[in-house]
Amino acid sequence: MSGNTLGKLFCVTNFGESHGPAIGCVVDGCPPGLSLTEQDIQFELDRRRPGTSRHVTQRQEADQVEILSGVYEGKTTGTPIALLIRNVDARSKDYSAIADTFRPGHADYAYFKKYGIRDPRGGGRSSARLTAPTVAAGAIAKKWLSEHFGIKVRGYMSQLGPIQMPFKSWDHVPHNPFYSADPEVVEQLEAFMDQLRRDGDSVGARIEVVAEGLPAGWGEPIYDRLDADIAHAMMGLNAVKGVEIGAGFHSIVQRGSEHGDEITPTGFLTNHAGGVLGGISTGQPITVSLAIKPTSSIRVERRSIDRAGNPVSVQTLGRHDPCVGIRATPIAESLLAIILADHALRHRAQCGDDSDKG
Amino acid sequence: MSGNTLGKLFCVTNFGESHGPAIGCVVDGCPPGLSLTEQDIQFELDRRRPGTSRHVTQRQEADQVEILSGVYEGKTTGTPIALLIRNVDARSKDYSAIADTFRPGHADYAYFKKYGIRDPRGGGRSSARLTAPTVAAGAIAKKWLSEHFGIKVRGYMSQLGPIQMPFKSWDHVPHNPFYSADPEVVEQLEAFMDQLRRDGDSVGARIEVVAEGLPAGWGEPIYDRLDADIAHAMMGLNAVKGVEIGAGFHSIVQRGSEHGDEITPTGFLTNHAGGVLGGISTGQPITVSLAIKPTSSIRVERRSIDRAGNPVSVQTLGRHDPCVGIRATPIAESLLAIILADHALRHRAQCGDDSDKG
Amino acid sequence: MSGNTLGKLFCVTNFGESHGPAIGCVVDGCPPGLSLTEQDIQFELDRRRPGTSRHVTQRQEADQVEILSGVYEGKTTGTPIALLIRNVDARSKDYSAIADTFRPGHADYAYFKKYGIRDPRGGGRSSARLTAPTVAAGAIAKKWLSEHFGIKVRGYMSQLGPIQMPFKSWDHVPHNPFYSADPEVVEQLEAFMDQLRRDGDSVGARIEVVAEGLPAGWGEPIYDRLDADIAHAMMGLNAVKGVEIGAGFHSIVQRGSEHGDEITPTGFLTNHAGGVLGGISTGQPITVSLAIKPTSSIRVERRSIDRAGNPVSVQTLGRHDPCVGIRATPIAESLLAIILADHALRHRAQCGDDSDKG
Amino acid sequence: MSGNTLGKLFCVTNFGESHGPAIGCVVDGCPPGLSLTEQDIQFELDRRRPGTSRHVTQRQEADQVEILSGVYEGKTTGTPIALLIRNVDARSKDYSAIADTFRPGHADYAYFKKYGIRDPRGGGRSSARLTAPTVAAGAIAKKWLSEHFGIKVRGYMSQLGPIQMPFKSWDHVPHNPFYSADPEVVEQLEAFMDQLRRDGDSVGARIEVVAEGLPAGWGEPIYDRLDADIAHAMMGLNAVKGVEIGAGFHSIVQRGSEHGDEITPTGFLTNHAGGVLGGISTGQPITVSLAIKPTSSIRVERRSIDRAGNPVSVQTLGRHDPCVGIRATPIAESLLAIILADHALRHRAQCGDDSDKG
Repeated sequence: MSGNTLGKLFCVTNFGESHGPAIGCVVDGCPPGLSLTEQDIQFELDRRRPGTSRHVTQRQEADQVEILSGVYEGKTTGTPIALLIRNVDARSKDYSAIADTFRPGHADYAYFKKYGIRDPRGGGRSSARLTAPTVAAGAIAKKWLSEHFGIKVRGYMSQLGPIQMPFKSWDHVPHNPFYSADPEVVEQLEAFMDQLRRDGDSVGARIEVVAEGLPAGWGEPIYDRLDADIAHAMMGLNAVKGVEIGAGFHSIVQRGSEHGDEITPTGFLTNHAGGVLGGISTGQPITVSLAIKPTSSIRVERRSIDRAGNPVSVQTLGRHDPCVGIRATPIAESLLAIILADHALRHRAQCGDDSDKG
Repeated sequence: MSGNTLGKLFCVTNFGESHGPAIGCVVDGCPPGLSLTEQDIQFELDRRRPGTSRHVTQRQEADQVEILSGVYEGKTTGTPIALLIRNVDARSKDYSAIADTFRPGHADYAYFKKYGIRDPRGGGRSSARLTAPTVAAGAIAKKWLSEHFGIKVRGYMSQLGPIQMPFKSWDHVPHNPFYSADPEVVEQLEAFMDQLRRDGDSVGARIEVVAEGLPAGWGEPIYDRLDADIAHAMMGLNAVKGVEIGAGFHSIVQRGSEHGDEITPTGFLTNHAGGVLGGISTGQPITVSLAIKPTSSIRVERRSIDRAGNPVSVQTLGRHDPCVGIRATPIAESLLAIILADHALRHRAQCGDDSDKG
Repeated sequence: MSGNTLGKLFCVTNFGESHGPAIGCVVDGCPPGLSLTEQDIQFELDRRRPGTSRHVTQRQEADQVEILSGVYEGKTTGTPIALLIRNVDARSKDYSAIADTFRPGHADYAYFKKYGIRDPRGGGRSSARLTAPTVAAGAIAKKWLSEHFGIKVRGYMSQLGPIQMPFKSWDHVPHNPFYSADPEVVEQLEAFMDQLRRDGDSVGARIEVVAEGLPAGWGEPIYDRLDADIAHAMMGLNAVKGVEIGAGFHSIVQRGSEHGDEITPTGFLTNHAGGVLGGISTGQPITVSLAIKPTSSIRVERRSIDRAGNPVSVQTLGRHDPCVGIRATPIAESLLAIILADHALRHRAQCGDDSDKG
Repeated sequence: MSGNTLGKLFCVTNFGESHGPAIGCVVDGCPPGLSLTEQDIQFELDRRRPGTSRHVTQRQEADQVEILSGVYEGKTTGTPIALLIRNVDARSKDYSAIADTFRPGHADYAYFKKYGIRDPRGGGRSSARLTAPTVAAGAIAKKWLSEHFGIKVRGYMSQLGPIQMPFKSWDHVPHNPFYSADPEVVEQLEAFMDQLRRDGDSVGARIEVVAEGLPAGWGEPIYDRLDADIAHAMMGLNAVKGVEIGAGFHSIVQRGSEHGDEITPTGFLTNHAGGVLGGISTGQPITVSLAIKPTSSIRVERRSIDRAGNPVSVQTLGRHDPCVGIRATPIAESLLAIILADHALRHRAQCGDDSDKG
């Protein structure tokens, strides 16, 4: 019930700092009998791993996961699954200069104000590196959702700074470093990113995540609605500043006669709801859209203060993602998978195995 | 830990159905010694009450709150505060026709699929009426935040359908039925709403909520971040389809050199962060923006199915808000106040009374 | 998640003070489709009601329960069930004299130290009266356990002060005011209690609670074990000072060759485990034993202090149970039923509908 | 919120199996600024370590702890503290014979029924080995309670099988392998244990735990009372079958005039309450007593069944504690420390830094 746990029944407790000995998580509540190997998890970790293209941080981390518990002879036993990732490429010296100053837009100011003490190396606990345990846990959730319900959770980037990236096909997503569903925009993105790196600046992005195949009936009436828990998970991801479900902010200008998805005997005609009505899944695809802010660690010089309150000029060198959104797609998928697994268990608790009572 | 509780230490457990005997909530965790009367709560309830202008539902509900526990001689005692609101104007007959059909865009379909049973009268538990207990609980949170920390939580409507309503001054907000901070747009809004009612249709809206005066340091590092918990609360409100903190979706196109708020010895120069960095408050105002979808209960005829799956045509008569966003401002304020009170307590637990360690 | 909620999935949130307007609870998580009427709940409330014999408090409380939500046309809907009991016979004047002094053995001292403020009327929130909502919630849990699993939860008093009351038959329990399973000891108990009242003193008791018919497999490995959660619930009941499962304290002198229950193809040969091994149910009856301390409100004069710390002599008049243990049996049954319902749901969440995987 | 977490604000999430790669825990909620080294934790781990005398299991485990996160430059940072202990001496072959049979009195039957799958090596997750992470977490809680409040948490064994071990002095406890507070009984205990080992049998024990120096006011009114949470933690420890606070089961035969602790201006005259009234601490020492059952893994042959339900004869060889109570004292201290730390934080959340409002 402290702050570093996600989920109520499929619970992920995250630990670690960017340059400490290790990062990891404990997944408590995964059902027994699921086939699970380190390779299953490694596959997803490799998707968010740094150093995979010139457009992301060049930090070299194998992000090799070790399963410490909860799996016996290749199957989950129902007991907590602890996952460990050792930090390897932790060059503390890169960060020593900024231990006493605050980067504009960076969490170090808030951490210092909260705790009076912080691990400044590599951003410590506020580093995007701490999304790796989330991805590892999400790999388990994804596998269970897929095998138990046939649910598929996928994502792509739909905008990078000013460049719109319309959806063409899921087939393209794994074949470019941007998770673009449109191969034709890739060249333009590469040029944009190369210029951005030369500028020493960063930029924001928009990510779409979709879950298909889930039954109607998951979610809770008030407060812990399915969409509320999705919003919680997504806004809890580093750099996210906005979350939409279905029509999202566009629903402001819609009329009820347009927004409300009509139903026929063969199904819904549209999906402005994004798969959730009254906080409960309808059986339509869950569609989520995220706004990711530009990285705060940039080479451009900016005004700030030091711990004593004196004015300083801050310029962040080191190995940073110029667009954290680029590696955000697998993380957002993982978060959605964890929330869905959690609500699958919550629904099963109250309403039994038959998901759809209607 | 079931689904109808908001907050971990300042806990609000909501109960009730639109046309059942009563609605209400239990607030567990409010600190002892706070002056509290039913009038304090009634004031906020009256702000969201139906029937206050021709632009909202004409249902006549006094929404008279009774404090059942937790207050002795005008002060909170630290024990649970139970709040009761009797349902008075529950005209069940208006709803009998729709018990077996599903309104497009309405929760009744999802409830039926989840539980196999539902109270159809007035939308049952999915009715916007269930936001009244949230407002009552929020009144307590607001009062404690105000008296203990000097925090002010306020909101206004910034867009109604296509009409933008720019912020002019807080002074205007209480003096029009739309919570508009610009008095000049009110006439246009009234005309728009009158036409909408004649059309039998509904429309969406955008609400802004702001909290000023909170200290730096509230929030948790990963998952239960302050912004994540705000997003959870807001997306858990009926009809909300999108949530933004600070620059929100606009941060997609920002560069890091623009987005990151520079700091000087006298404070931050901008507030693109919306008062939260790394999930922890910075001491700047918390700024939240919500997208509210159009009401699903409209007179316009639409295609749907009945419980047996047969095609039907649905037209919803009865007394409905043509724009639920109009009454959403005090509710959104309440949600923000509850989350802030919760994080105030969580911060005090871990870091002690001195909020700002820096 | 604040302190006044019992259960994680079958959640009971208790509110109220002895002499406030009302007491009650919200039951969140009860499965949908359970037949439930106010009479079902009233039956259990009447079992713990004051004034039913000369051996308990003469306070006259109808303890009439009202279901405020969560039930539609006689069936639970899956939404929170709020239960309300108005306080009727609240003679505040009886208690005014003791508002400033602390009764030895009574909670008023600790409440004052914690909150700096308390409702002194009738013991306020620390009154045994607050067990009524627990019993009301327990009635729902009992009904669900009985109908869904065929589980029977029953209790009896096995000792009152120095008088042992050995188990003879469940049939006797409802037919005497002491919940004795042996009718022959009742005369002796009545004489003992009459003398105790004349002495103006009070005495302790031992209660046994048994649940039969539950499947193997309910419980969690570490920390939230089934026996741990039972102990939590029982020790959380007013006046309880000790809890045993199975052989309890007798297991100290047992050898492993005696204590470990042998198993044959037709079942266990003994039940020293009390139905729980490794925190998980074995399918044998759950057996729990409670020690209940003597009431602290007695006529015998005792030394204490007032709020200013001055020495005073305290004698408590008013209408008090000389043995709170007498009315404890239905309460202890209710607590056990709530914990079992909670673990039934928790087990179903993780392992699915089939309780027994073996 | 799944089953393997202890505490609501000072949260310990336990993971691991006896013969898996590692065991450990994540401590989330520890306040920042506490000095903490691996040596602080190792000291407590060494107290429960196997192989320290001939009366406990001869398994050789260094139980070397590694702090993976949450500590920077020797101080806690307020972020989760992950603790890792590698399993070293895991002789799986000793256990292979019993993978398909159930030991009378052992958790393996219940685990199999719950999950349908289990790690049988060394008892898997039900092994007493999993108390090591609890002790490691307890070391942190103890240190914080000691430094922040001056609270001392200590325990001793007061009975081993039929041998009573009355309290003489805390000074003796560390100087014998039984945690006896009376040095004169040690010779008798050694002879008893030597005979027990020759018999191939096991025996129960009673442990006392005491916390001194805590302020009045910690605890919650109903359900999550301080004594209830202590009972939960203690009954959640392997092999515990009974828990008492203060006078415990003896309070059954006490009269109110004897049990209720009288108060004078200089303090309480007795402590039958065990430091808790109405679920809230009084400032007196917290006194807890535990019944620990005899180990189920014994050489004496016993009747049982195999997974197919056929009758078998079971005899457990391997390296087992003939009295798990011998190593239970530091574990029980740890559990009490964790619960007190949790309630210290909970109290601070609701009532602020000043613990005593009276």
